[in-house]
Amino acid sequence: MEIADFQKLIEQMYSAKDRARGSPRTFLWLIEEIGELASALATDNKADKAGEFADVFAWLVTLANVEGVDLNQAVEKYAHGCPGCGKMVCTCTEK
Amino acid sequence: MEIADFQKLIEQMYSAKDRARGSPRTFLWLIEEIGELASALATDNKADKAGEFADVFAWLVTLANVEGVDLNQAVEKYAHGCPGCGKMVCTCTEK
Repeated sequence: MEIADFQKLIEQMYSAKDRARGSPRTFLWLIEEIGELASALATDNKADKAGEFADVFAWLVTLANVEGVDLNQAVEKYAHGCPGCGKMVCTCTEK
Repeated sequence: MEIADFQKLIEQMYSAKDRARGSPRTFLWLIEEIGELASALATDNKADKAGEFADVFAWLVTLANVEGVDLNQAVEKYAHGCPGCGKMVCTCTEK
């Protein structure tokens, strides 16, 4: 799926509730899903992990919708190399 | 960009370092980026916000690479409706 299509899908599915809730409260739900991902990472259940990765991504995109950020456009910063070192295979030392 | 292509790009750019670092330490960097997103959300700087959304997404995808999770496949759970209520426009009441 295209990043832009996923963002549109999530917009259609959740934007009415998201906008009413606002950005800070939407961020809280993103963090709740980050916690669920952490729990899943501590297990060997691959399906649970995959589900939690999808949920974190969905909440990240939902928050981007509330903030009016186009995620597909935003990731352009990675398209031609690492934003830190500029290389296609990162040579940054700090991370 | 396709979700799968972004995951491949991030794999090429960072996987050698990611795999050496391992999943728990990669998770720490994801959380660090979540903190930077929180800081950006508190401002009115749209470009900073966009950059931080991209960075969180990149670290989420990096962690998915370390865990062997195909994010494009994982988001299929949203393709035919909200995983909670099954509707294309969510009617869940708890979130």
